[in-house]
Amino acid sequence: MSKKKNKPFRPKARRPRGFEDKPAETLRAETALIAKAFAVYDARGFEPLQTPVFEYADALGKFLPDEDRPNEGVFAMQDDDEQWMAMRYDLTAPMARYVAENYDALAKPYRRYQAGSVYRNEKPGPGRFREFIQCDADSVGAPGAAADAEMIMVAADVMRAVGLKDSEYQIRVNNRKLLDGILEASGVPNTEAGAAQRIQVLRAIDKLDRLGADGVEALLGEGREDESGDYTDGAKLGADGIKAVLGFTTASDPDRGNTIKTLEQLVGQSERGMAGVKELSDIDALLTACGYAPEQVAFDTSIVRGLGYYTGPVFEAELLADIRDRKGRPVRIGSIGGGGRYDGLVSRFRGQEVPSTGFSFGVSRFLSALERMGHSTVDVNAPVIICAFDKALMPAYFMMSDELRAAGIRTEVFIGAGNVTKQMKYADKRGAPIAVMMGEDEISAGEVTLKDLALGAEMAKAIESNEEWRESRPAQVTVPRAELINHVKAMLSA
Amino acid sequence: MSKKKNKPFRPKARRPRGFEDKPAETLRAETALIAKAFAVYDARGFEPLQTPVFEYADALGKFLPDEDRPNEGVFAMQDDDEQWMAMRYDLTAPMARYVAENYDALAKPYRRYQAGSVYRNEKPGPGRFREFIQCDADSVGAPGAAADAEMIMVAADVMRAVGLKDSEYQIRVNNRKLLDGILEASGVPNTEAGAAQRIQVLRAIDKLDRLGADGVEALLGEGREDESGDYTDGAKLGADGIKAVLGFTTASDPDRGNTIKTLEQLVGQSERGMAGVKELSDIDALLTACGYAPEQVAFDTSIVRGLGYYTGPVFEAELLADIRDRKGRPVRIGSIGGGGRYDGLVSRFRGQEVPSTGFSFGVSRFLSALERMGHSTVDVNAPVIICAFDKALMPAYFMMSDELRAAGIRTEVFIGAGNVTKQMKYADKRGAPIAVMMGEDEISAGEVTLKDLALGAEMAKAIESNEEWRESRPAQVTVPRAELINHVKAMLSA
Repeated sequence: MSKKKNKPFRPKARRPRGFEDKPAETLRAETALIAKAFAVYDARGFEPLQTPVFEYADALGKFLPDEDRPNEGVFAMQDDDEQWMAMRYDLTAPMARYVAENYDALAKPYRRYQAGSVYRNEKPGPGRFREFIQCDADSVGAPGAAADAEMIMVAADVMRAVGLKDSEYQIRVNNRKLLDGILEASGVPNTEAGAAQRIQVLRAIDKLDRLGADGVEALLGEGREDESGDYTDGAKLGADGIKAVLGFTTASDPDRGNTIKTLEQLVGQSERGMAGVKELSDIDALLTACGYAPEQVAFDTSIVRGLGYYTGPVFEAELLADIRDRKGRPVRIGSIGGGGRYDGLVSRFRGQEVPSTGFSFGVSRFLSALERMGHSTVDVNAPVIICAFDKALMPAYFMMSDELRAAGIRTEVFIGAGNVTKQMKYADKRGAPIAVMMGEDEISAGEVTLKDLALGAEMAKAIESNEEWRESRPAQVTVPRAELINHVKAMLSA
Repeated sequence: MSKKKNKPFRPKARRPRGFEDKPAETLRAETALIAKAFAVYDARGFEPLQTPVFEYADALGKFLPDEDRPNEGVFAMQDDDEQWMAMRYDLTAPMARYVAENYDALAKPYRRYQAGSVYRNEKPGPGRFREFIQCDADSVGAPGAAADAEMIMVAADVMRAVGLKDSEYQIRVNNRKLLDGILEASGVPNTEAGAAQRIQVLRAIDKLDRLGADGVEALLGEGREDESGDYTDGAKLGADGIKAVLGFTTASDPDRGNTIKTLEQLVGQSERGMAGVKELSDIDALLTACGYAPEQVAFDTSIVRGLGYYTGPVFEAELLADIRDRKGRPVRIGSIGGGGRYDGLVSRFRGQEVPSTGFSFGVSRFLSALERMGHSTVDVNAPVIICAFDKALMPAYFMMSDELRAAGIRTEVFIGAGNVTKQMKYADKRGAPIAVMMGEDEISAGEVTLKDLALGAEMAKAIESNEEWRESRPAQVTVPRAELINHVKAMLSA
């Protein structure tokens, strides 16, 4: 017992559930992706902003922490002054707080972009983390459809900036006002009183892909029992209302102009519906003028977007693999982000509408979709490794690495513990293209030995069948020290 | 009362104490600074890593949350599974956890860099935040002085990379082993038993600048009463020990070789002291071979570094303004970061020493020092603004902005609400160099009007004295639409 007591405390090296370490390759790819999006935002005059990770819970809105379960949904804690702070769960709510706090000082429209970690205190699962990065751009104080059109163009520009062909993505645009108008015509008032019913209709439409028209029809009406026997209460629309909504969700056409004509008829005399059609028409004019083809930006009445706060145009950015299904249509990789107009978010603080619109994407989700589509996301070479045979020669090794770096070649001297075998294993594990070797003998002879590790690996695979090639491109060469740079460059470009 | 009750809840837009929003200019400068440091790390073969913001509290080490005051020093919270999580207070402890967790899979030495926010649950003050960004590079599993020399070079390279002249910074290097050796000779055992006394000696030396030699002498001995009557207990060294320590702190010379010779004599036969001198001598050889002059990297025996976990070479990166004091010495701006060897941090998890060395700097502190020294830290132009006179012409405005962006010119269309006066105020507030104006008349005439806002501002200042110049460079010109790009480019470069 006493022996155990004297043992120092040794914590287990582990992470809290749902939090991940990001290794070099992922991180480089994320950084490159974000930089490309930022360049798009910058070019259009957006400015960067960074808000803190903590906000006062009441400023974040929907989650007011319950004192018994303060961590429900968000990570919350009570500050020394008894006020509840919560970690941001998205980047929009903190931006709304920032704009409200600095309203008079800001030039409006205020157009900002931000990338940063957001936090959800939820049960983690595969690919579902409690900390993940979002990348947002928003225009605040911009009431017109031009602002929405710009956000849609920004989304398309980001797709292009990361290297996607126009056939590999599509921005799908809808407008909340259209459905509001159609529902109004079906007796769902366009006020707070109809809000719950509208949300139910949105949720039903969102299940079109999964349940088909019949399932959605049931959810728009009385309700639906699924295979497991669970019953979901419906939106209680009448037969005309159900028909109108289902007709609406299939109203879109590959031609944006045709879709607008169909929608004009569907919304009838509803003021809100007509306003929605006018907005789409204005957006279409701008998209067409700037050369965004329907292939890139389509009007799609089945698009819902989950969040309740959207008030006008909404859109999703979908990636399409260059694989065709049986009907010859491109296979969907899925939505990697989206956005839309929200006119009420800043008004929470100010009591007056501040018209806003934005675009947001999940960095990890976007990246893994790009990888599935075979897009290489980053290209940083592994370093050349200078082996350290002889401690006394360290200054010579360091000078050599300076020389290589000055020539633009990523290089390191092995500074760990271990003999040549260990050093070669290290070079292998790092994926180093070349190991540079120099001992006393080489120094005296004014020479240096280069081991072509990429070639060596290839040769190991084909050692018998490729003897000739082996002789013509030896994996190891000894060259004059003065010609080091040229030989390394030649090996790297081989 | 009932009226008040019906009023919607309106939260106040405010931030928790000690957390700051970062506006565009600061953020751009920070991003650029970090990118320059990362390029240095990358070129030397370091790889990026990102760890989560939360760690298990026991993995972070020194702060084990007290259940009564869980937020003491760190931001901590209990997870659903009852385990305590804490937000990282630096980037070194999480990196140690990461290395211990992935020890066998990692190529060693493991050399990583990371920039990220760290959190201190302390009383905020001017320039003292509870969330701030550190930027670190570390080599783990690297026992020799070459690894320390490389970290020192990395620090110097970062100073150069951000645009400092060699006369504007100095990396000041010491070695903990030297003082250990000197104290050993003065009867302070080089074991756990002497740890508390060694820390007291370090703290006393750290006050040399503020208290002078007399004050430090008192703190090394019995203790010291300050002007307010507060008494600080001393390290209780004997007269010989005090003399040896004071002698040590002033042993450094501008010439690194001379300093080494002096130190050899001071440490006498102490094994640890001799090891420290040997390390500095090895570091000197590498620095000299790679051309790091004493002006850039000095040996300075007064350097302490606060953290208790350092075990060998330590260093600080000091910025020096190009202002001389009365003795002709460059005025110190102060330390913006530093680092050193810590061989025990990963061993907390593994029970075996994992020799490590690192360099860390505070991003905000570095940036504000650069600004005080008059270094411009970033250079992004404000956008050209295309005024929106006429909603019907929006497509034409958007096409024009596409054209300007395609020519590499940052441009936006005004998408807010407001007439020309408001739009010009917006352009002014944004610092826009040019406002582009085009109405029906211009369109018909195939023309466009450019307002040179930079020139306009200058002219407003010198309106009377500079009539001639005004005529030769008008602030507003109407040019053919086809020549838009050339005219904007000419105005921007004027």
